[in-house]
Amino acid sequence: VSFSDSSFKQISWQDCDYFENYGTLKLHLEMLSDKPRTEAYKKAFEVYCRHTKDKVVLDIGCGTGILSMFAATVGQAAKVYAVEASDIAHYTKSLVDKNGLGEQITVIEGEMENIVLPEKVDLIISEWMGTMLLFEFMIETVILGRDKCLKEDGVIWPSEAQLYLAPCSAQSVYQAKVKAWDNVYGYDFSSLREEAVKEFFYKPIYNHNLSDEDCLAEETCILQLNMKHVQIQDLEKIDKDFSFLVKKSGPLHGFCSWFSVGFSHPDSDSPMVVLSTGPKHSQTHWHQHLFMLDEPLSVAPDNEVTGRITLIRNTEWRRHLTVIIQGQVLKSVNKERIQSFHKVFPLWM
Amino acid sequence: VSFSDSSFKQISWQDCDYFENYGTLKLHLEMLSDKPRTEAYKKAFEVYCRHTKDKVVLDIGCGTGILSMFAATVGQAAKVYAVEASDIAHYTKSLVDKNGLGEQITVIEGEMENIVLPEKVDLIISEWMGTMLLFEFMIETVILGRDKCLKEDGVIWPSEAQLYLAPCSAQSVYQAKVKAWDNVYGYDFSSLREEAVKEFFYKPIYNHNLSDEDCLAEETCILQLNMKHVQIQDLEKIDKDFSFLVKKSGPLHGFCSWFSVGFSHPDSDSPMVVLSTGPKHSQTHWHQHLFMLDEPLSVAPDNEVTGRITLIRNTEWRRHLTVIIQGQVLKSVNKERIQSFHKVFPLWM
Ligand SMILES: [Ca+2]
Ligand SMILES: [Ca+2]
Repeated sequence: VSFSDSSFKQISWQDCDYFENYGTLKLHLEMLSDKPRTEAYKKAFEVYCRHTKDKVVLDIGCGTGILSMFAATVGQAAKVYAVEASDIAHYTKSLVDKNGLGEQITVIEGEMENIVLPEKVDLIISEWMGTMLLFEFMIETVILGRDKCLKEDGVIWPSEAQLYLAPCSAQSVYQAKVKAWDNVYGYDFSSLREEAVKEFFYKPIYNHNLSDEDCLAEETCILQLNMKHVQIQDLEKIDKDFSFLVKKSGPLHGFCSWFSVGFSHPDSDSPMVVLSTGPKHSQTHWHQHLFMLDEPLSVAPDNEVTGRITLIRNTEWRRHLTVIIQGQVLKSVNKERIQSFHKVFPLWM
Repeated sequence: VSFSDSSFKQISWQDCDYFENYGTLKLHLEMLSDKPRTEAYKKAFEVYCRHTKDKVVLDIGCGTGILSMFAATVGQAAKVYAVEASDIAHYTKSLVDKNGLGEQITVIEGEMENIVLPEKVDLIISEWMGTMLLFEFMIETVILGRDKCLKEDGVIWPSEAQLYLAPCSAQSVYQAKVKAWDNVYGYDFSSLREEAVKEFFYKPIYNHNLSDEDCLAEETCILQLNMKHVQIQDLEKIDKDFSFLVKKSGPLHGFCSWFSVGFSHPDSDSPMVVLSTGPKHSQTHWHQHLFMLDEPLSVAPDNEVTGRITLIRNTEWRRHLTVIIQGQVLKSVNKERIQSFHKVFPLWM
């Protein structure tokens, strides 16, 4: 199915709901209030302004236009095309004008898929990341924009992205949602535990705040994207084997995921600007994502947790994906299997 | 329109969505995790058990059955009819049996409107309170149950309910939602303030946590209900004039509301058991409700804030209401009007 069938895209991409959400101020306020997120983009222009000066930039999904304003002022770009499909674009043009940037920044209301720019660009910027990096699959729109509008030697920001996974405890979550039913004001409601596990844990908890002491092993990178070269087909099914060495005893309630992105420039030696949404960094509006198993596993420092994570893009609802986490807990010394786990998580359908 | 037209009730009361919500564990976990709420009912049975012993009780909207269990064990009721319309009732019967209360407690799945009990009851218990006390209008179901099932000299818990109002500051809310647009990473987004006020303040903020120092005057009681005598018609339109004496200087951003309920027994001298959701009490899952004006008013200790609050039940969507707050700020000394205000808040349609 190609994007030329735009009514199909509208339905399977749930575009009406998607763009309606981004047409309100609430989401934009949340994103703008996220300082680590927004300041990372500003910092990229600060660090690499020598390479963005007088260049032509495309901002895909510009929202209120903040990244385009960084490009024009901090980055000293000659021209910025700021593309936005949601109704917020109505405001973006006046925000740009109010800040004296109407000459440099051209706001174009519409979908990247349908837009034709008058020229190819030197730099594409976009904040496209969602839960598990990929949810909403705005990355497809960015790839499309890259293939259509970026000069061969052009740069795309972020330049790269990584997705991480770590086994973890989540005792307070497990207590509050499952164990609490054992004793409810002195009564035994434990027969509700099974339904509670289904209702509260069948999807990932997308806004979990993972503390360092809840990590049971060093995180591993399960996905690495080079934004200059990644193809849409690469994102249909992603498999990654993992092998964690447990570093502390505890209940393994599930697995926690987060991502990072990096901004670099091929003509510059400056160290990469990194935006990480991990537990060791300042909290962002993405938090971390917690995949709770139905039953906690007991692990100790002589254990390994090995297995595979699979991300399968939803073939019908194109903004969604399924995450499968499966594997076993082994005794390091003899690889004897202690426990197994296998769970399928819809994100979100 | 009468309830005999049940398909009309289903639509205008949005019963499918309403009961579907209460069929999941999430809401029940929230309510059970609210200790002040749940323990108030338990305490009522503790304080008045001499008067509930061997009595017949009706629990309207019993949910997981916790109040019925208090009635049977703490209250030593002879019989409890536990009525629940949502799917949670499937679990309630097994919870009752698991706790050895199957003889005392009879779980009846269905709507109070359609149920016929084998006998009239001595005591009705129900936790029906919503935002602004009345939202969801479960109180109508309770009144119906009272008129249909309660003995003439029967008791209803809560016995009474009060709704309070106080003028307040809400600087952090105003800053985060409105003033923040003035300076967004150095850019002027103030043209979005008007839209922000509309989007964020046109409805009440139902989960506000009011601090004592944000109260600009002593709260006033704007509604007092005697649950033995209140009629459904009394709730169609409620008007209350108010007159606040400002006790501190500050920006008056809006008005904050909360409620309390009381449990008493006509045959007992024991002091009333009170559940308050006000700012001076332990937080409950109701929090307080904040009605933000479009523009803050400036007030000082020589001012009065007088006016009227009106609650109008929605004639089409029967679970909803509209709140109108209007009035003026006056100089106490000469009643000179300084500013006026008038705002209509949908709760929620
Ligand atoms: Ca995003
Ligand atoms: Ca309630």
